[in-house]
Amino acid sequence: MGISEQLAGFALAPCEAPDAVRAVARLSLIDWMAVGIAGADEPVAGVMRAMAREEGGAAQAGLIGGGRTPARMAALVNGTISHALDYDDTHFAHIGHPSVGVIPAALAVGEHLDRSGGEMQEAALIGMEASIRFGVWLGRGHYQVGFHQTATAGAVGATVAAGRLMGLTQDRMETALGLVATRAGGLKSQFGTMGKPFNAGLSAANGVEAALLARLGIEARPGALEGPLGFGATHHGAAVAAAFDGLGADWIFETVSHKFHACCHGLHAALEAAAGIAAGAREISAIRVATHPRWMSVCNQPAPKTGLGAKFSYATVLPMHFLGHDTARLESYCDALCADPDLVALRERVEVTADEGLSEMQARLEVELHSGEVHSAFHDLDAVLPLAQRAGKVMAKAGSLLGAGRAGRVRDMVDGAAGPGALARELAL
Amino acid sequence: MGISEQLAGFALAPCEAPDAVRAVARLSLIDWMAVGIAGADEPVAGVMRAMAREEGGAAQAGLIGGGRTPARMAALVNGTISHALDYDDTHFAHIGHPSVGVIPAALAVGEHLDRSGGEMQEAALIGMEASIRFGVWLGRGHYQVGFHQTATAGAVGATVAAGRLMGLTQDRMETALGLVATRAGGLKSQFGTMGKPFNAGLSAANGVEAALLARLGIEARPGALEGPLGFGATHHGAAVAAAFDGLGADWIFETVSHKFHACCHGLHAALEAAAGIAAGAREISAIRVATHPRWMSVCNQPAPKTGLGAKFSYATVLPMHFLGHDTARLESYCDALCADPDLVALRERVEVTADEGLSEMQARLEVELHSGEVHSAFHDLDAVLPLAQRAGKVMAKAGSLLGAGRAGRVRDMVDGAAGPGALARELAL
Repeated sequence: MGISEQLAGFALAPCEAPDAVRAVARLSLIDWMAVGIAGADEPVAGVMRAMAREEGGAAQAGLIGGGRTPARMAALVNGTISHALDYDDTHFAHIGHPSVGVIPAALAVGEHLDRSGGEMQEAALIGMEASIRFGVWLGRGHYQVGFHQTATAGAVGATVAAGRLMGLTQDRMETALGLVATRAGGLKSQFGTMGKPFNAGLSAANGVEAALLARLGIEARPGALEGPLGFGATHHGAAVAAAFDGLGADWIFETVSHKFHACCHGLHAALEAAAGIAAGAREISAIRVATHPRWMSVCNQPAPKTGLGAKFSYATVLPMHFLGHDTARLESYCDALCADPDLVALRERVEVTADEGLSEMQARLEVELHSGEVHSAFHDLDAVLPLAQRAGKVMAKAGSLLGAGRAGRVRDMVDGAAGPGALARELAL
Repeated sequence: MGISEQLAGFALAPCEAPDAVRAVARLSLIDWMAVGIAGADEPVAGVMRAMAREEGGAAQAGLIGGGRTPARMAALVNGTISHALDYDDTHFAHIGHPSVGVIPAALAVGEHLDRSGGEMQEAALIGMEASIRFGVWLGRGHYQVGFHQTATAGAVGATVAAGRLMGLTQDRMETALGLVATRAGGLKSQFGTMGKPFNAGLSAANGVEAALLARLGIEARPGALEGPLGFGATHHGAAVAAAFDGLGADWIFETVSHKFHACCHGLHAALEAAAGIAAGAREISAIRVATHPRWMSVCNQPAPKTGLGAKFSYATVLPMHFLGHDTARLESYCDALCADPDLVALRERVEVTADEGLSEMQARLEVELHSGEVHSAFHDLDAVLPLAQRAGKVMAKAGSLLGAGRAGRVRDMVDGAAGPGALARELAL
């Protein structure tokens, strides 16, 4: 069986995800809503909503930050906005961000077709699982050569989610997947520009478009994802056969990671290690961090003067943590912080070294106190957190971004399987 | 200077195309309108208009076959419809169809922004030239591996055309080109399905979208067409440096080819050769055609029974010509024709041989009469026709498709530089 046929079958079958996987999917939905709402006033969000206003159209689905448009446009706008802060979830096997490429498609189609919250959540989960599997199938070479799985594999997942909610047949779903093979794209060279979040919007919109055209009767090449001259063959795909092993029974989505700090990913392992060390800023005589050599040129600014610089500085974020600043909060990273005497004093006590023995996801931390006592900690971002701990951290982050009250409301809506329309109204505020 | 910078400069500079080039561009516009109108009732046209109706939106631009939508949607729909018959122009250096990927973008944006017919025609010409140059820059390898220049290079041309009509600055035009690098796509594996014409729609819509978002202030990676991890690098582009030599002074668009027969391209050289031989069907004792070996497996059906089969049959189309059937007309290729005794009698006198010495664009024909007299002719589709001859053939084709009256009206509108709104009204009929 070809992977298009297999993916289409998976897209349409009853969802057999265990409760633990569904719980993680709810956390990703809460997290997605939190970063989407927090990103609603980013410059790229204004650009996308301006395009939506110019085009107008049927009020099928709501936009983050307000406005109603056709579902395809809502997917484009919301996918882009929710990735604007680059603060959404990540799956390292997929090599991409599952939620931003898929949830906006499921939400927009779900709202348009008045599907239940449960149906929408299942479609989003199945779509994200499909996107991760397809990302694995494409392999690291696809990413290394310059493609952005968030956009490319994401569009496959978005097609699956949108097509499921539209009630496509197996044949129509395969057609949608055949069509998205000619539509999907997205380049890593956009990183550092608004083109990066736009890639997430492309993913979601391409999926809605392919599913919609399939519903309306278009024909496309069957198996165009995997076949001769297909998406994989043309886009440097490795065609990793094992990528689809256990599809429908095993859920690799479960190992998705959430970001808990509003700064460069290279700093996260050190910050997580710091969370395991109980020490007040005034007691500390030295902070020694060991990290993968790659990060030395990425996020080791010794004395940044701006909030943006602070996001790329071990010497800033570790003192922030010990001084009690909330590293999950966007506003914590500001120019004033960089000039704060307490922070400057502690910054000078931070020493960063490269260690080839660590992975990019690992950091080792030593904190020496004036008393001579030394605390040490190690963190590996690849290690999956226990669910309760993960839920606590996602909610703390959502609280930092939205305030505790709104974060709780979002959680209650998601955990109560509120319908897509209700979620869209919350995102519009 | 990078090619994005160069293309942006070309996009915005006064158009210095000589009159002969402008005349060919007018022929391509007439031809595009004729095949678009003729394709308005194709199944894929109905699918695309159905999507447009579902989404609705601002009535900025007209659709082939009726309806008004935002410009981006009109570009998608009209690009697809105009390629539905696969009867539009071709540029063999570009390896693609310049008009269907670019004209719909220029027409939609031109109508939306109320640009003059002259401005719209110049933008379309400049966009088509840009798309052909970029197609050459990508090279044959891009096509061989499975990409469809009509869609990929076409999107670059559509961005140029749309951005010029929007009055973008150099900086904004470069941004639009940087953005379309992450949006453009389109696979050859869709050939033989509705996905092929859809690729042309993608081209036009992606160009409108990129230009529109650039106008609204998006930021994207500069030079993302040609730079590291850019479109060329990721999409098997050869980066043919000479592709942009003489840009703005020399117009390789001028060597565009038009199709004059509603059948497989492999039959066209033989039909053109036949046009040079004066012989009535009843006089003919044998028709001998020599063609490139590639075509023997593509379009050498000896005795097809259906109109579709007839489109892939030397033994059918050459008798059609000598019997006076109009090979430019869609309706000529019908099942009844295949059973016509006169046609069957002549079909049996056709002999097809492969000749390695011919290019794919060449054919040699010998027609032997009962008198013993032998007429021979040779045709090379790569040889550019004199303008007056080309104009006559385009108008004959347009007449075959639309009737002489409507074809003349279309020509008069185009030659009189009628505004985009007037052209759109004609296409809506």
